[in-house]
Amino acid sequence: MPNGDCLFCQIVAGEVPSFKVAESDNAIAILDVNPVNPGHTLIIPKKHSENMLDADDEILKEMILFSQRVAKAVLSGLGYDAFNLELNNGRISGQIIPHLHWHIVPRIADDGLQHWPGKKYKAGEAEEIAEKIKAQIK
Amino acid sequence: MPNGDCLFCQIVAGEVPSFKVAESDNAIAILDVNPVNPGHTLIIPKKHSENMLDADDEILKEMILFSQRVAKAVLSGLGYDAFNLELNNGRISGQIIPHLHWHIVPRIADDGLQHWPGKKYKAGEAEEIAEKIKAQIK
Repeated sequence: MPNGDCLFCQIVAGEVPSFKVAESDNAIAILDVNPVNPGHTLIIPKKHSENMLDADDEILKEMILFSQRVAKAVLSGLGYDAFNLELNNGRISGQIIPHLHWHIVPRIADDGLQHWPGKKYKAGEAEEIAEKIKAQIK
Repeated sequence: MPNGDCLFCQIVAGEVPSFKVAESDNAIAILDVNPVNPGHTLIIPKKHSENMLDADDEILKEMILFSQRVAKAVLSGLGYDAFNLELNNGRISGQIIPHLHWHIVPRIADDGLQHWPGKKYKAGEAEEIAEKIKAQIK
């Protein structure tokens, strides 16, 4: 069901304009209007779900294959060799629009974009954390 | 086919130890030993492919559903509300191990991690870029 207040539902319905580059049965690909690099593309399912955790299996499966198709076109169309696929899930993660979407961010050599730094676990900490996760796997 | 020089193939084969938190038919989930936040988990297909562009459809579909299962366990097991799902595709993107894998990075409020900044397109540039991508969609 479309959500009338949702920007991405409005874009899917054609009520808000976008730069659409591709469409599959259940998803669209549009340019991000504030690109990290030119050609930064969003993969958006047509059906509203807030994020990846409440999305249907069939939609997720289609989205990942559609992302692969679109990523190939972004690379070959614009002469890139590499990209990041990114999904922000939840407000704290940086998800601004609460409608599931993935970013394809094409990368340019020496574009200066840095990944978040890693830390080391203390002795015994990784084992403890792994057990807590394992106990919740369903 | 496993690739003997590949760290992730060696981890899948059990030849290199890891903190495994879950396993599906065709993928494993292990803790990243240099976590951005505690519980940072990697989703790794058992079959070697260099990245998302040369991966089998069935493996990609399984990976995204497995990622959803594992992400739910990371959140509930460790008390997080949000995460980023990230895939680095190609050396320039920050992909260090050339064996397809995705990162589940749990997020903590005010952890200070920033997303890459967006820019604006010049007049007419977005249309031109969208056309170049569209022409390559297969």
